Amino acid sequence: MMIWMPIAMAVLGLAYMLVKKSWVMKQDAGDGKMKEISDHIYEGALAFLNAEYRLLAIFVVGASIVLAGIAFYMDSTYLIVVAFIIGAIFSAFAGNMGMKIATKTNVRTTQAAKTSLPNALKVSFGGGTVMGLGVAGLAVLGLTLFFIGFYYLFMGGEWTTTEDMTIVLEALAGFSLGAESIALFARVGGGIYTKAADVGADLAGKVQADIPEDDPRNPATIADNVGDNVGDVAGMGADLFGSYVATVLAAMVLGNYVIKDMGGAIQDAFGGIGPILLPMSIAGVGIIISLIGTLLVNISSNDAKEADVQKALNIGNWAAIAMVAAACYGLVTWMLPATMQMNFFGEGLQDISSMRVFYACLVGLVVGAGISAFTEYYTGLGSKPILKIVQQSSTGAGTNIIAGLATGMISTFSSVLLFAAAIWSSYALAGFYGVALAASAMMATTAMQLAIDAFGPIADNAGGIAEMSEQEPIVRERTDILDAVGNTTAATGKGFAIASAALTSLALFAAYVTFTGIDGINIFKAPVLAMLFVGGMVPVVFSALAMNAVGKAAMEMVNEVVRQFREIPGIMEGTGKPEYDKCVAISTKASLKEMMLPGLLTIGFPILVVLVGKLAYQDNNMLVAEMLGGYMAGVTVSGVLWAIFQNNAGGAWDNAKKSFEAGVEINGVMTYKGSEAHKAAVTGDTVGDPFKDTSGPSMNILIKLTCLIGLVIAPILGGHSNDNSHSEADPSEVRLEMKGDTSKMATTTSTTSTTESGKKIAKVQEVENTVEEIKKKANKAETTVSRAVQKGKKKE
Amino acid sequence: MMIWMPIAMAVLGLAYMLVKKSWVMKQDAGDGKMKEISDHIYEGALAFLNAEYRLLAIFVVGASIVLAGIAFYMDSTYLIVVAFIIGAIFSAFAGNMGMKIATKTNVRTTQAAKTSLPNALKVSFGGGTVMGLGVAGLAVLGLTLFFIGFYYLFMGGEWTTTEDMTIVLEALAGFSLGAESIALFARVGGGIYTKAADVGADLAGKVQADIPEDDPRNPATIADNVGDNVGDVAGMGADLFGSYVATVLAAMVLGNYVIKDMGGAIQDAFGGIGPILLPMSIAGVGIIISLIGTLLVNISSNDAKEADVQKALNIGNWAAIAMVAAACYGLVTWMLPATMQMNFFGEGLQDISSMRVFYACLVGLVVGAGISAFTEYYTGLGSKPILKIVQQSSTGAGTNIIAGLATGMISTFSSVLLFAAAIWSSYALAGFYGVALAASAMMATTAMQLAIDAFGPIADNAGGIAEMSEQEPIVRERTDILDAVGNTTAATGKGFAIASAALTSLALFAAYVTFTGIDGINIFKAPVLAMLFVGGMVPVVFSALAMNAVGKAAMEMVNEVVRQFREIPGIMEGTGKPEYDKCVAISTKASLKEMMLPGLLTIGFPILVVLVGKLAYQDNNMLVAEMLGGYMAGVTVSGVLWAIFQNNAGGAWDNAKKSFEAGVEINGVMTYKGSEAHKAAVTGDTVGDPFKDTSGPSMNILIKLTCLIGLVIAPILGGHSNDNSHSEADPSEVRLEMKGDTSKMATTTSTTSTTESGKKIAKVQEVENTVEEIKKKANKAETTVSRAVQKGKKKE
Repeated sequence: MMIWMPIAMAVLGLAYMLVKKSWVMKQDAGDGKMKEISDHIYEGALAFLNAEYRLLAIFVVGASIVLAGIAFYMDSTYLIVVAFIIGAIFSAFAGNMGMKIATKTNVRTTQAAKTSLPNALKVSFGGGTVMGLGVAGLAVLGLTLFFIGFYYLFMGGEWTTTEDMTIVLEALAGFSLGAESIALFARVGGGIYTKAADVGADLAGKVQADIPEDDPRNPATIADNVGDNVGDVAGMGADLFGSYVATVLAAMVLGNYVIKDMGGAIQDAFGGIGPILLPMSIAGVGIIISLIGTLLVNISSNDAKEADVQKALNIGNWAAIAMVAAACYGLVTWMLPATMQMNFFGEGLQDISSMRVFYACLVGLVVGAGISAFTEYYTGLGSKPILKIVQQSSTGAGTNIIAGLATGMISTFSSVLLFAAAIWSSYALAGFYGVALAASAMMATTAMQLAIDAFGPIADNAGGIAEMSEQEPIVRERTDILDAVGNTTAATGKGFAIASAALTSLALFAAYVTFTGIDGINIFKAPVLAMLFVGGMVPVVFSALAMNAVGKAAMEMVNEVVRQFREIPGIMEGTGKPEYDKCVAISTKASLKEMMLPGLLTIGFPILVVLVGKLAYQDNNMLVAEMLGGYMAGVTVSGVLWAIFQNNAGGAWDNAKKSFEAGVEINGVMTYKGSEAHKAAVTGDTVGDPFKDTSGPSMNILIKLTCLIGLVIAPILGGHSNDNSHSEADPSEVRLEMKGDTSKMATTTSTTSTTESGKKIAKVQEVENTVEEIKKKANKAETTVSRAVQKGKKKE
Repeated sequence: MMIWMPIAMAVLGLAYMLVKKSWVMKQDAGDGKMKEISDHIYEGALAFLNAEYRLLAIFVVGASIVLAGIAFYMDSTYLIVVAFIIGAIFSAFAGNMGMKIATKTNVRTTQAAKTSLPNALKVSFGGGTVMGLGVAGLAVLGLTLFFIGFYYLFMGGEWTTTEDMTIVLEALAGFSLGAESIALFARVGGGIYTKAADVGADLAGKVQADIPEDDPRNPATIADNVGDNVGDVAGMGADLFGSYVATVLAAMVLGNYVIKDMGGAIQDAFGGIGPILLPMSIAGVGIIISLIGTLLVNISSNDAKEADVQKALNIGNWAAIAMVAAACYGLVTWMLPATMQMNFFGEGLQDISSMRVFYACLVGLVVGAGISAFTEYYTGLGSKPILKIVQQSSTGAGTNIIAGLATGMISTFSSVLLFAAAIWSSYALAGFYGVALAASAMMATTAMQLAIDAFGPIADNAGGIAEMSEQEPIVRERTDILDAVGNTTAATGKGFAIASAALTSLALFAAYVTFTGIDGINIFKAPVLAMLFVGGMVPVVFSALAMNAVGKAAMEMVNEVVRQFREIPGIMEGTGKPEYDKCVAISTKASLKEMMLPGLLTIGFPILVVLVGKLAYQDNNMLVAEMLGGYMAGVTVSGVLWAIFQNNAGGAWDNAKKSFEAGVEINGVMTYKGSEAHKAAVTGDTVGDPFKDTSGPSMNILIKLTCLIGLVIAPILGGHSNDNSHSEADPSEVRLEMKGDTSKMATTTSTTSTTESGKKIAKVQEVENTVEEIKKKANKAETTVSRAVQKGKKKE
């Protein structure tokens, strides 16, 4: 009954989420002006999400038809379409729910900040907790329910063969694809929205009218606050929802292959599917652990500083990670056979103890913590790279930007080395199952991570509301403390998101190879190498499109703001009312329009690769599968690099600018806000905005979605479902039949049974046939020779 | 005697070069002030190069010891060390020669500009021609001489076996490695020098004292002009010298493999080495074609505009490309067997007509032209992307920089697709030999490209001298026309350089795989995938180091200039003399110091990959070879992307800034120099400077050198030389044996190469052992038969 455990955990998490939500909603929402502003933000965000969902509904219908076509062509199950649609709905719902609670919590945080800082943290982090538990709970609930449904539908709730399980998991991939597709548009659309509004508001406000941030006279300021919610909250939520689902799915696929490597069936206390259940169980337990983690986050002193708040968050986070490590130990040793056989490339079957799988989990936790630490080093206030950027600001915006770019670029060094080491070591420990479980362990604290992440924009919004509703300075000071911490957690959260995306993609990549049945991806084949290049290019072009979109939308925004400043009488004196809704409309329209092309690029390119490949090599599906694999690898490698580069450069510029608020020493002189150096730093931040909040975070989805699309296409190219549904023979019969052969054949069979596809059997047999022929020839030659020799001897 | 043809061509080119040089030197070098400035530049450049060469001498000694160690360990020839040293010397000599002629031509161009524009073009392009022919001539001469020497030394000047030829080519790789190592430091050191001086002079001049470019009161102005020569001339020369040599070498290696695929020996009119001689012959003929091309460059009207000058250069360039196409047709059909057998991955041996090799050459020419066209589109004055950047400058430096970055990023789209298509099609046409010959055909016009490239900085210098020596405005106007054209040719030249580097690297990559004897590079193996990530990261970190170096050195420069402005009395009034040499010294010292780390990264990382791999897999050289291959692929893919991105972003910013000189329309208002928008564009250009002249062009060398180091390490891992030197069997016997089973054997091998994975290796090896046994039997049988036949004949 372990199969129901993740659902129980998810329901528990969701129940707690509802309790927490009603607590948050019960908090005082403040007076008239505050409520009014908050309502503006809520309505703006809702308007955007509704418009976005209308558009996405069309996309989901279109994609469903394509998927149904694939299912028809493959003669596989149409249930993948159902899974896809539900996955999309769940993802949209998760984002929507997060956005709603965030926009309700912001004003309550402002109100709480009037009383004390601990209260403000409690309310804002409470909102984040609702969001985190909601997203994680929905993810585990949806995935597990579908798995159980398909498990009973296709296998009658009992282990039959790995082939049948593959069909279950292929259908389940639809759920993940649906979730990730929505995440793409939520991330990209939200990212464009938030930065178009932010950059537009900044440029218009600071440059054109010289009024401070969040000033209510700036017509773009509501749009800016809406952006925080649709980008940083809804977008991030959909992103991690997708990662969570995809990671668990990939680990399940690879768990199935462990069973395959072990001979196609195992005996355990979990109906023979322990390795498949394990990732789901880790995810389920992770929800409860995150719940406990959130309870540990609180401060008591009203005089707390940023460091204290950060410490409170860190305690919760580290406790959660430690608990996950312990839980992984328990679950792994309990659910996995003590010793497994796994097939290693070039080394054949090896015995792997369950402890090695646990070590792989630890690798994942180390990567998560490591990436966050690196991110903090490169983007944290007061760190060496930030101080260098500050120094370089003294000679103008040019040198500030060179320094920021260089910081982002050089930050790839440590993170990539860590990744490379993680890939290598987790694979060496427990094969690609180890890689996938490393990702699963890391993702187990997703709910906690999201709580920490979502708290940032809530605090940011709370500060904005305080400013706009002209509260006492102490209120803004308190929200500023929370906001500053939120900036750091936003950066480390992005590190976590990219690390999770990278590990997830690797696991999906491995699942892809096993789905297609290819032997690997050989980049020495020219078409594969060509696709590696093409794949490497896509994240770069994707980023450019996203940045251009922000630039374009921000320009529109600036023009609109300038128009309002000019045309609305008394706006600068505070007697005229700015038309906030016009700015909201501009951001909404622009972001929806501009997210199309990057989306098309992401979804269209892998399909194009397959079509071109099929045109060129009609009869060689394996080569086409390798080409797509090369493309996926290119996207992943390049995407990870560009994500780290852009996130960290953006974060570094942001905090270099922020450093001037407290004052910095440049060449021995204390320099503050308003100085020339500060202006240069502001320019750097403007460049960094789309980097860190639009194009950078979109890379996560780009690489995950690319690998997921590959996984869904995989059966067409490799044809598991195809092989099985059209095969008249019972698989067990085939195995039996193979056993009959001589010793030579026996080795063949064991190889064949570990490696799946019938194609491979054909190949090995082809080799053997050739050998047979050569043997015959040699024999013939030998006889000829001996005859000739005999003849010669006779003559002599 | 075809083997001597390339030498004859190279000598002819060098002879013409000397004639042209003496003509240039005979031109009037102007009056006292001009000469004085020119001498300053010459001395500064010479001082830098001398300091650089002293440093590099130490490096060459160290690297030679390492190479000797490798040769000792491998039991291979020490002559690779000799080739390495001579290669390094040749490369240094080529750069030095180019720099000298450039610094002598600049002042003569200024003087010629006093009389007429056609004269100024004639002189400046004459200097470029000397440089181009000198570099190309030396490259062909050196490579061919060494080849002939080794050919006679190891093979007695007669075809023996492909294994012997591999030894020849392995030794020859030393020449290429020497050339490319020097190129690395010349490119990086020169790039840092030129941009440190340029950015420093700009910032100090424009920002701090508001004096125009090239104003003689600016102490950094001489350093700036020196930089043009050591970076754009000497650096570019060493870069293309290296590309030229590496391309031809790679094509020769792959030509040897064509012979291997054809059974180990062919009969042709070129001593059986037609496919190996062909790339050298194309290079040789290319020198003469370039010579003819340069003769076609001239203008007649004194009122000519940029477009006319550009047209004159284009005529020469296109004529040269057309002639190369014709020459390739002639050479390919003449020198290659009408039909060849080539081994294609997974498809076995195929018959390839020589015409298909010719088509592959055409692919190379199309790539060269295509990349240049794309570069011009994204960076040319008046093009759509440039106008967009100009528009975005109106809202400040932030949006200008976002637009420039996005332009650079999006420009990767068309270029990468072109590359991918080129890789795929040239491979489909004629295997990796086709890829290598595509590169060779493209590189054939190197001398012409260099002449066009070198003319730009000469004209730039001439303008600087005109300004500093306070000539009539008409002189500066004329040199400005040449300078403007030079900016465009610099951008397209960079496109050519990266295209050549990419194709060269691919060819080297293919040669690497054949040298090591691995079946391919399977990125589904975790350690290989990990190295793909690491390789992808290196160009990014390399770029960051180069940019940081420029930033640091520029800051030092600014501080020095500000000090001089403050401390030297009368400097701003023109009565005090600035200390130019101090600025030159700062640039020299900084660039030499800062080029170390990127150099170490480039050379050290591939070695580190091998060491780590060897530590992990002592007994599996093949896996280590695959890991290094994955690393090489990562560097190449990421390096090409970052090169295009950085070059084009930099070029676009530069020309967006230049657009303001003639005036641009922004929102319906004509905007000129000195406007706020122009200031924003200047900031963009500052960021673009290190992009396009330091880190961007360094990518070429990074990827080429990485692949070359791989090629030199290859025998250690794969061990062809090793196999042969330790093999007791006579290679010719082996060949005979291979011939025996012909087509069937080929399919066996290819099938084996596509199947691998786990246990399969063991299985396949089992099969292979059987095949080996059969082979031995067949071999024995064959020798017995032939002996019997001979005996029989004798008796008859």
